[in-house]
Amino acid sequence: MTETFARGDSLASDARRLARPVVPSRGTRRGAGLGEVTWGPEGYWGSRQRVNAEATIAHCEAWMERLGWLENFDRVARGDVTIERAGWEFSDSELYKLLEGVAWELGREHDAELQARFDALVARIAAAQDDDGYLDTAFGHPGLPPRYSDMAMGHELYNVGHLLQAAVARLRTGHDDLLVEVARRAADHVCRVFGIGGQETLCGHPEIEVGLAEFGRATGERRYLDQAGLFLDRRGHGTLPVRPLLSAEYFQDDTPVRDATAFRGHAVRALYLASGAVDVAVDTGDDDLLAALTAQWEHTVSRRTYLTGGMGSRHQDEGFGDDWELPPDRAYCETCAGIGSTMLAWRLLLATGEVRYADLMERTLYNVVAVAPDATGTAFFYANPLQVRVPGGEFSGEGVNMRAEGGVRAPWFDVSCCPTNVTRMFASLHTYAAFVEGDEVSLVLYGAGELSFELESGRMRLRVETRYPDDGAITVTVVEAPSSPVTLRLRVPAWAEGSTGTTSEGVETLETGWWRPGAVREGDVVSLMVDTEPRLTWPDPRIDAMRGTVAVERGPLVLCVESTDLPDGVGIEDVRLDSGVLPLAEGDGAIATMRARVGVEERGALPFSRSADRAHAEERVLRVPLVPYHRWGERAPSQMRVMIPEVATSRRGA
Amino acid sequence: MTETFARGDSLASDARRLARPVVPSRGTRRGAGLGEVTWGPEGYWGSRQRVNAEATIAHCEAWMERLGWLENFDRVARGDVTIERAGWEFSDSELYKLLEGVAWELGREHDAELQARFDALVARIAAAQDDDGYLDTAFGHPGLPPRYSDMAMGHELYNVGHLLQAAVARLRTGHDDLLVEVARRAADHVCRVFGIGGQETLCGHPEIEVGLAEFGRATGERRYLDQAGLFLDRRGHGTLPVRPLLSAEYFQDDTPVRDATAFRGHAVRALYLASGAVDVAVDTGDDDLLAALTAQWEHTVSRRTYLTGGMGSRHQDEGFGDDWELPPDRAYCETCAGIGSTMLAWRLLLATGEVRYADLMERTLYNVVAVAPDATGTAFFYANPLQVRVPGGEFSGEGVNMRAEGGVRAPWFDVSCCPTNVTRMFASLHTYAAFVEGDEVSLVLYGAGELSFELESGRMRLRVETRYPDDGAITVTVVEAPSSPVTLRLRVPAWAEGSTGTTSEGVETLETGWWRPGAVREGDVVSLMVDTEPRLTWPDPRIDAMRGTVAVERGPLVLCVESTDLPDGVGIEDVRLDSGVLPLAEGDGAIATMRARVGVEERGALPFSRSADRAHAEERVLRVPLVPYHRWGERAPSQMRVMIPEVATSRRGA
Repeated sequence: MTETFARGDSLASDARRLARPVVPSRGTRRGAGLGEVTWGPEGYWGSRQRVNAEATIAHCEAWMERLGWLENFDRVARGDVTIERAGWEFSDSELYKLLEGVAWELGREHDAELQARFDALVARIAAAQDDDGYLDTAFGHPGLPPRYSDMAMGHELYNVGHLLQAAVARLRTGHDDLLVEVARRAADHVCRVFGIGGQETLCGHPEIEVGLAEFGRATGERRYLDQAGLFLDRRGHGTLPVRPLLSAEYFQDDTPVRDATAFRGHAVRALYLASGAVDVAVDTGDDDLLAALTAQWEHTVSRRTYLTGGMGSRHQDEGFGDDWELPPDRAYCETCAGIGSTMLAWRLLLATGEVRYADLMERTLYNVVAVAPDATGTAFFYANPLQVRVPGGEFSGEGVNMRAEGGVRAPWFDVSCCPTNVTRMFASLHTYAAFVEGDEVSLVLYGAGELSFELESGRMRLRVETRYPDDGAITVTVVEAPSSPVTLRLRVPAWAEGSTGTTSEGVETLETGWWRPGAVREGDVVSLMVDTEPRLTWPDPRIDAMRGTVAVERGPLVLCVESTDLPDGVGIEDVRLDSGVLPLAEGDGAIATMRARVGVEERGALPFSRSADRAHAEERVLRVPLVPYHRWGERAPSQMRVMIPEVATSRRGA
Repeated sequence: MTETFARGDSLASDARRLARPVVPSRGTRRGAGLGEVTWGPEGYWGSRQRVNAEATIAHCEAWMERLGWLENFDRVARGDVTIERAGWEFSDSELYKLLEGVAWELGREHDAELQARFDALVARIAAAQDDDGYLDTAFGHPGLPPRYSDMAMGHELYNVGHLLQAAVARLRTGHDDLLVEVARRAADHVCRVFGIGGQETLCGHPEIEVGLAEFGRATGERRYLDQAGLFLDRRGHGTLPVRPLLSAEYFQDDTPVRDATAFRGHAVRALYLASGAVDVAVDTGDDDLLAALTAQWEHTVSRRTYLTGGMGSRHQDEGFGDDWELPPDRAYCETCAGIGSTMLAWRLLLATGEVRYADLMERTLYNVVAVAPDATGTAFFYANPLQVRVPGGEFSGEGVNMRAEGGVRAPWFDVSCCPTNVTRMFASLHTYAAFVEGDEVSLVLYGAGELSFELESGRMRLRVETRYPDDGAITVTVVEAPSSPVTLRLRVPAWAEGSTGTTSEGVETLETGWWRPGAVREGDVVSLMVDTEPRLTWPDPRIDAMRGTVAVERGPLVLCVESTDLPDGVGIEDVRLDSGVLPLAEGDGAIATMRARVGVEERGALPFSRSADRAHAEERVLRVPLVPYHRWGERAPSQMRVMIPEVATSRRGA
């Protein structure tokens, strides 16, 4: 255990420039700050950040107002007796997540109108807070169940956790304002009620842990971290009551965090919990806990994670399945689990410097998180399956999607955790582009733009030129550098075998991982060229639900086939990819050669027979476009699949 | 629409001999009666009937008493204010299903002690009935929600439906007793409240329809059938409120029964609804409705049904998935859905005489319904997946399984619909062994025993000798026959290609379907020999989750491999069946040749790579026992799979 607890960098004069999520109080690496990275507004991520600021934030606010989720705060403030409350027990958290996003956004760029809306929302929250700091609109007020009467599913501490994360964003961007005051009072209340000598219980949905840990960092007050540690230690002893479908595993209350071997149960819960646990492990110097978490991550990634980086294969409990249980069609892969996995990977990357965390983070961002919002930023996927058999219907601007699934993006959900989560992630995403360690800058995510860091030896400014992921050329110009040697590292993604690096010294073939072109000086230009030609990827044979299939990837993007691109008379269930013919690049997707069996005999009997094949009228050879998975369903409701049945050709043996 | 409504055969002097579920008021075929078939107590089904009578009935009664589900009736009778009611809204129905089973059992054989227990239970029910006939322990009494305040999930009419089915069993076995009186009052209440001019709504869980239709048959009162028809016609217009995870499709309230193209939504709901709809269609001569239902059945069987006959692939809503969505591992295949499918298939068989309904019924009975109870009849599977990766734990006699899944049979469940459903099905199962049409008897299920029918021309008595399904020889001796020609038909199962039939005329090779050996006379002996050697069965290539696998069947039994039978060091995920070597019969199972890849490289990275195979240390050739699926998990908690990955050999092309 550590003796010191370093205060975060909040309220420093250059707060906004350095502001970022995840500021470990120990360790040598730090992520980029809001003002240290600027992505061009037309790049892959830059354009998404722009749409998030221009459309998604207002969209989320409007929906919450319309559905009465904000009115819930007013009702509590007025002391009304609540008969029918709007929304679920966790609806408060959606506002907090939105405010976190707005706080990061305001930290990037001042916007008086947005600031005024932010202040107005905070005032409504503050009015609903009880004198003792308790804050929740679903419990503890007239007509509502008593405080903390449903720790398993009540989400009261979960809500506070998101409030704290919003306050952290505010503190780190230089504001010690009403939201921070509300958060501090709520956090103090939590520490009083659930601290040593208090109620020895925990919240069914982890989040308070990561919220408290980061709030402790941002305020410099150790006791919040200690309370996070208390909640962590309490977990895994079967404290929460079990109900049908809500097992101890669902809540990660089956096994102590440091004894578990894999992430399990509800995926978002598991990933938020692990993120908070990494924060505690790092800040307390608990290497055993960190080792347990990295082992759990490794097990989970190698046996319970989709090609997209998606996690959580079960719809029933929104949870991880067993090892190798990775159905493409019923893949849940919740958008929020992708965000939780990103939060976790970033923390592990800062803690260890290991490139594998960056690789998974990039995969997840491109193929889970970026899949959710449409181009307008006002409709979202909640689940991100790798196969959809029945084309989705329509959700008009009026429609709330009652189910977390479906083949079309919906403007809002009955359980609407994903849109606001996308908002806060995108508002701060450029801070994940790089990290700094001493006099070394490591580039993690690639996008055209500018980076500027005050290193120990002085300022380093970089210009990145790239059309990544559409193109594999990434050119970094050192616009400014200290006179003493500083170094730069570029991530060569795990899939990018055979990449080349070019410096003034010449061209070299690179191993995957970190490429360090040597000390750089002002004016240096280094180029990384990764191969973004389409490539074939096979699943582990132990993934039963993917046996006999192959996927096509291109750079960091997973591709898919949509029924939209099949000729008339050919169903998506009829096509098989000929893996003997490599798909060719086409636009941002590919063209694959497929064989379609059309006119398959319909027998009207059980779909099992004494021969392996079904009679069919004709086999057609087709050249079929594949599109990036993140764009699926955008043109029209469609059938879609990522894992494509393979025609066994000379490329494969038995 | 018909003008006449024939009275059932209840209360006839030979009531008990002819008593049976499903007595259509129109049509030419009738099922066997309780007293017309006797299976030997040691045969496959006879032994299960014996265990059901000796153990399961008492087991179910004891659990319901212990958990307070029976006390619920007493509490209502006393007028207590209910604070915490035991069990779910549908717990009343478990008692009614048990009483239906007891009624059939008492119809087979008088048992004074069982009769006394039956009467005592009925008295408790009667005491809880309101003066106007309303009967439910979860609504409409002090401390409970008002009557019919939750039509979607309240299950009040569902409960009444099961009460009516129990009363039908009582009426048909010659008793017009208190249970029948209670049922009549409840049915009359339902007709008053929900009849023409009454509340135009319906129950979220179908069952009242089949209950009313059969009660109308048993009492001869047409208005009950009419009310069933009203409920059917009301369904499919989006009347029930929709909640998250409880869509209109879940309740079959999305599309009118006669417009649907497949069974969909919650599987048990869908199958009970279809059963009631067949009853109404048959009794009213509504051929269009019957045609719609047979088309739905055909679609469902050919695209939404497992090799076991199991239906319902989704855990989340206990529902049918999309076409071709048949994961072996997450197959829900609820035991009750197997019973619902049997109820439906039997009705369609009586309505049409088509052998395909008998074939599915047999498959489902052997590979879903018989799988549920263990040999003692006191522990049950609820879900019947075709693959289990993680061996189940233990449920002691004390344990209630909170989840409807798991790899070990449990004595009871939080939602415990399956044990009592097994009870009523097994108590009457021998009535499904044959049906009669004019002077012809058709044998449907095979078991050693005696059959005796009063045909139009006189008595026909048959003795069946067989060890089926362990052996394929079935010998039928005509012990007694009328002097005028009568005929006998034996079902040659759809899987039994190349079967032979032997009569005094010689031996012939038979087509599958109905074999009619010609007119039979007293003393004739006819033998059917079906091939029960192990055979390989492949899934339709459109079933994505089964691609690259093969199953082994033997006679009507689906076989499986259990980890219990693998040598040390070989995991079930390592083995592939060599389809080039036909499995050999061994006991009631088989011995298959498999190739095991052991020492598979663990990479600690995503389970996807640029090569199709994984490095492994060794390939071993094994001879592995396969056991009947209905016996899986009996020896020890195990991993299990029915669909076994296949080694592509010379038997298969691409």
